[in-house]
Order: sequence, then structure tokens, then C-alpha cells
Amino acid sequence: MNSISKLARLFEQFPGIGPRQAKRFVYFLLTRNPAFINELSTLITELKQEIMLCASCFRFFAADRAGSTLCPMCRDKHRDRSTLAIVSTDADLETIEKSHSFNGLYFVLGGSVPILESEPEKRVRTRELMETLEPRAKSGELKEIILATSLNLEGEHTADFVRSLLSPFIEKYGLKISTLGRGLSTGTELEYSDADTIKNALKNRTI
Amino acid sequence: MNSISKLARLFEQFPGIGPRQAKRFVYFLLTRNPAFINELSTLITELKQEIMLCASCFRFFAADRAGSTLCPMCRDKHRDRSTLAIVSTDADLETIEKSHSFNGLYFVLGGSVPILESEPEKRVRTRELMETLEPRAKSGELKEIILATSLNLEGEHTADFVRSLLSPFIEKYGLKISTLGRGLSTGTELEYSDADTIKNALKNRTI
Amino acid sequence: MNSISKLARLFEQFPGIGPRQAKRFVYFLLTRNPAFINELSTLITELKQEIMLCASCFRFFAADRAGSTLCPMCRDKHRDRSTLAIVSTDADLETIEKSHSFNGLYFVLGGSVPILESEPEKRVRTRELMETLEPRAKSGELKEIILATSLNLEGEHTADFVRSLLSPFIEKYGLKISTLGRGLSTGTELEYSDADTIKNALKNRTI
Amino acid sequence: MNSISKLARLFEQFPGIGPRQAKRFVYFLLTRNPAFINELSTLITELKQEIMLCASCFRFFAADRAGSTLCPMCRDKHRDRSTLAIVSTDADLETIEKSHSFNGLYFVLGGSVPILESEPEKRVRTRELMETLEPRAKSGELKEIILATSLNLEGEHTADFVRSLLSPFIEKYGLKISTLGRGLSTGTELEYSDADTIKNALKNRTI
Repeated sequence: MNSISKLARLFEQFPGIGPRQAKRFVYFLLTRNPAFINELSTLITELKQEIMLCASCFRFFAADRAGSTLCPMCRDKHRDRSTLAIVSTDADLETIEKSHSFNGLYFVLGGSVPILESEPEKRVRTRELMETLEPRAKSGELKEIILATSLNLEGEHTADFVRSLLSPFIEKYGLKISTLGRGLSTGTELEYSDADTIKNALKNRTI
Repeated sequence: MNSISKLARLFEQFPGIGPRQAKRFVYFLLTRNPAFINELSTLITELKQEIMLCASCFRFFAADRAGSTLCPMCRDKHRDRSTLAIVSTDADLETIEKSHSFNGLYFVLGGSVPILESEPEKRVRTRELMETLEPRAKSGELKEIILATSLNLEGEHTADFVRSLLSPFIEKYGLKISTLGRGLSTGTELEYSDADTIKNALKNRTI
Repeated sequence: MNSISKLARLFEQFPGIGPRQAKRFVYFLLTRNPAFINELSTLITELKQEIMLCASCFRFFAADRAGSTLCPMCRDKHRDRSTLAIVSTDADLETIEKSHSFNGLYFVLGGSVPILESEPEKRVRTRELMETLEPRAKSGELKEIILATSLNLEGEHTADFVRSLLSPFIEKYGLKISTLGRGLSTGTELEYSDADTIKNALKNRTI
Repeated sequence: MNSISKLARLFEQFPGIGPRQAKRFVYFLLTRNPAFINELSTLITELKQEIMLCASCFRFFAADRAGSTLCPMCRDKHRDRSTLAIVSTDADLETIEKSHSFNGLYFVLGGSVPILESEPEKRVRTRELMETLEPRAKSGELKEIILATSLNLEGEHTADFVRSLLSPFIEKYGLKISTLGRGLSTGTELEYSDADTIKNALKNRTI
């Protein structure tokens, strides 16, 4: 197998990329100048050195000179430490941040738990979650945990798993645990809504 | 213009039908047998005679022999008369019914109010709505009105219009007025959600 | 079953219409004024009286006072009688006419022949085709027959059926029989073309 | 700007990749093990060293030990040297090869010429094309040039540019120049075809 095919095979593993587009990526690179290639290769190599996993929320962040193990968000004193949103991925965290409607802290599970997964603790950061939550709950700082997962099979299954995992802990420290509100999302036309969405929209109606 | 073009022009006015499909409808009819044509023509002609507008909820229903001016739903004693959902169309009402999650009564506005409409009362059944609500509120039977409109510009504008229309009335009789819950709808992936949906999902989170 | 459901069931038989849109058609009709309903019903009823099947090409056309059994196209002396395009439907014929690139005559099969159909002669106008072609071939007027079917399984199968049906006839009168050219159609991007299209485009390349 | 954003900005330049997917690529890389990162980075860096531009057809190919400047296809004695297909990209060439319907040689232009481009010779390999063709035409080996471009505005414009560029040359050596056949492509439904496709399909009909 030559370099074109080998590189295409790696690109095929990128999220959402099929064989044809992988091949186009290789041809695209073949037409770039050396500066582009160098920059790309260097950034890929150094990415993991420059990017750290926050020791508290486990999101990726750019390491700074001071060498803090916490991301700027976890260090930010203006964030509300009483609320913590548990999300599956960094991308989910970013979407929530962009909505400018949440000022608490986060925890990134690093994945989600598919239905029928026999070892869910290998899919999401189970131990890290407990280690992060324990001291905060103990200190009385943490009041509410929000399970912020997608409203699909895998997202709900992940939320169920985390909820049962946290259940003794929630009880012990008297925490609140909540899930994202359900109902009509932006653009929803009533006529074409499914029964569950209608049901949730009626149940969660606001006065 | 010949009959094919004339009939195609009428079909073009049907919801969601363009010139090409309208033409296909005509060719389709030309290949049907006389029995089909007769049945179709007869049903179209008699439709309005056999279908009545319910004098209470203003949905369409099949007239029965007894000649009741109320639809079976409005006559049904097992429905909860304390709650009334205001919807734009019969199709919206049907979608809600199919979800089996609402047991109150309905009122069909018969349309919605586009942004910038200068005469909203010509778009929706304003007078009929007041006439239906008044006696029920007076008698104390009615407790809550649900504005069950789509979560898009026109739906929200319609809800705003109805809300301000009903406002003195709501106050006078001490009614509750609510809107459908907002948040994640079935299948929503967090990563791809818009800011408003995230905001609503966080605000309306459930413990 | 009430009139709404009955009429919706008929609309569901229209090409491309599902249960939901059929229902919307009925609600749409319920909101039309009596003039619209009358015109629609009348046009549907009279359609077959005012529209005739041309005795030569078997397309539908609006009957005129003179009571001619031939459509205006078949009567038009400026059309080229030496070429005849065999098409599946009136809609196909119209698309070809709109391209302004054919001046011969047509024959409408009135359908196409699915793969595995055991009685193809019940799907397309077999007898009528022979009766139309025979005198024209005999008189020496007709020189070429074009099989103008879609380039998909059913279209090709229909062309194969007609070709073998006409085969003895073609030979007897020394006619030419052709199919539509194959290759790149408007908008085709080479990179995303299938092998057959590439093959045809290469084989039929033009100097 | 941190490494995540910098790398995302490079991925955004990849064909068909928007800001969101570019970001997902970065997060994807952050979760890969060092082996994957190393292999990716190495393959990207070495790609241009291991891949050469064929001195004859200007496609990319994996360099071999012998250090030939010609790709295996151009060296293959079983390919027909009398026919040469001029294509825009390596991807177009691959699609044609996969159709197993062409046994001639190729020339890859390395791009296409947009409408209104004032310097077309900067978009496609003009000089290289002439240098490749000249000796072959002189020797009498080359007989036909096929302009194998997409059937869209840019593709046709590219073919027009190359045709006028080659025009004196074609005349001098008495070569044939052809374009890919036009007509119905696989799957085309007659009813929904545009006028040009119908026109081409009729003009290029095959007996």
C-alpha cells in the first residue's frame, strides 16, 4: 500500500469521513506548499503537548506558562460553583458555553454509554467523576448536578448510567440532580411533532 | 386554457403542490375509472354538507343524525373541562390527540398570525374564541388556558396575539395561562442545538 | 368512517401523497369557499368528457368542436412524420416537447413494464402501438422509431419489451430503431459518476 | 489563539470541512493514542517525498526504488498510446479507471478554469500539457485527445479553454479531438430531465 492509500486510511477514521473524502484530503495535501504541510504536521504532533486535560472538569485546554492543571474556566472565580453540568464531550460543553445561559462548572465524561454496553465505566470517566465531585460535595460548595446529555437513546442511557452511579452520593450529601428540560425546541412545528415531545411539552408547560 | 390546465391550476393551490405535481394529479385522474372519479367528485361536493364546524371548539367533525352542533370530544363527559388548549389548526389538534397526553378541551383558531399582519383578527377566530371562553370562565369550570402553538416565528407571534387578546379576561376571572414547555425535543443532539434551545433546556430543567 | 377519512383515503392514492398530506388536502378543502369546491368538482367530473385520447399517439388532449379524434400535434403538417418517439407517459412527452428539440410524432405507451411482469401487454398499449405503426410503415412515411424511456431499470425493461415486440415489424419494413443517447447529463460531475455513465460517455464521445 | 484553534483553522481549509467539523477533528486527535498521532504526522510529512508527479501524465504516484519519473500507468505497454484523456483532477482520473472502460493514457490538468478567470494558464498545467503532447503527436503515436471534463459550467469552460489552446496543434498534426458523450446518465428519469439533457439524448441517439 502506498503513502496515498495509507494516509487515506487514517483520514477515514476521522469523524464523518468516508473513503472518497479521505482520498480528497490526501490529494488536497499533495497540492499544498511545504509551509502548510509543516504547520499541519507540527500542530498535530505538538497538540497533545500543548493541550492538557483539566484536572477538574476534564475538558481539553491550552496549557499556559504557569503550568496550572486547571482550565481557565475551573479557575474563574466568577463561575457559580454550586452547579455542575455533566456533558458527554468537549463539543457539547462548547455548545452550552456559546448559548451564554450557564455560569456553573462542567464535567466532561469523554464519551457516552451505548445501549447494551456491558462495561460502561470504560466508556466514560467514572472514577474521575467521583474524585472531582466528592470534595466539592463534602465542602458544601456543590448543590446541584445537571445531567446535560442529548435527548436520544445513547444520551438518555448515559444519563441513566451516571444517575445510578451518583445515586448513593446524591443521597449522602443531599444534592439535587436534574436533567435538561424537554419540550418544543426552536423551530418545532406542532403538527409534525412526535408523541413524546408533545407529552413533554404539555407536562412541562410554563405558566 | 383546456380542462387539463384548468384543473392543474386548482391542484396547484393545494398545500405543498407545485405545477408539475398538479399536472401529474390530472393525468392520474385521467387514468382512473368512472367509479373513482364519481366517488372523488361526490365526496368533495358533499364534504361541507357532512362536515360541521363544532360550535364550541371549532374543529371540523362529521355531522351525526342527531344533528348536534358539538363535536363528540366537546360532548364527552370524561374530558377535563378545566383545561383548554388553543391550537392553530385541526392538524395540530390531531397531533396532540395522537400523543394521548392531553385530556382537556381544545379551541381551533383556524390559522395563525404572521409577523406584521395588520389585521390579526381576520386570520384567527377572535370573536368565536371570546364567545366560547366567556361562559366557561364565568361558571368557574375553566381554570387554565394552554397556548399550544408551534415554536417558530409565526407560532410565537400567534401566541403573543392571543395572550394579549385574552389578558383582561384572564385577569377578570383569575385564570391561569400557560405555554407549551420548551427544551430538548426527541432526537435533539446537544452539540447541534441552537442557543435558545439550550437556554430553555437549562431554565426548564427538571429535578 | 366519516367523509374526512373517506376523502383522505382517495387522496392517498394520488401520486406521491401520503396519509398526512392527504388529510391536509381535506382540511384545505374544508376552508375553501363553495365556488372553489364547485369548480374543482365540476372539472374533475367533466375532465374525461372534455379530454380525449388521441387515436394516433394516445396522448390526452382537449376535445375541440370539430370532434377530431386526433390531437393537434398529430394533425400538424409541420411535424416530421418520418420519426416517432415512443414514451411511457404524457408527462415524458411534455418534457420532450418543452426541450424544443424534437419535431417528430409520439406514441404514449400509457405506462411502463416492471421487471418480472408476466403480462407486460397489460401495462402498455401493445395492440394500439401496432395498429398505429403498421399503416405508417407500409406507406413508407415512417423511417425511424426512437425508444424514449428513462434510464433506470423499469425504463430499460420497457424499451427492451417494445424493441422485441417491434422486432419482426422493424425488419419487415426496414425501419431504424434507436434509443436515447447516454452519457453525461447536465450538471454531472465526473468524479461522482457511476461506471456505466463513464462507460457510455466514453463510448459515445463526439468528435 | 491556542493549538486547538490553530489546528482547527488548518482543517477548515480541507475540502468540504466547516468550522464545526474542523473542531471535531481536533478533539478526535486529542483522544487518539501517540501511535496514531505519530503515524499521521509522519505520513503527512513524508507524503510529498514519497509521492511524485508523473513527468508525463502529471498524476500523483508512489515513487519506487528504481526512481522512475513516470507512473506505472504511463510505463504500462498494454495501454493504448493513441488515445489521451485530459482530466481536471486525480480524482476524475480514478473514477474513469474504476469504470474499466478506458485503456488510453491521461493528462491531469491539476484544476479547472472558472468562468471569468483572466489567467487560465495559472489554473491548469498549460505548458506541461503542450510539452507532453508535442513529441507524441510528432511521432504519430497519438491520434485522439478526449476532453474528459465535468458537464457543468466550470467543466465546460475548462474544456473550451483547452480546446482553443490545442487548436493549432490539433490542426498541425491532424489529430482528432473529442468530448465525452452527453445524454441520459444512469438513473435519469425522462420526466424530470432538463431541456439540454433531452436535446443531447435525442441528438446522440444510438441506432
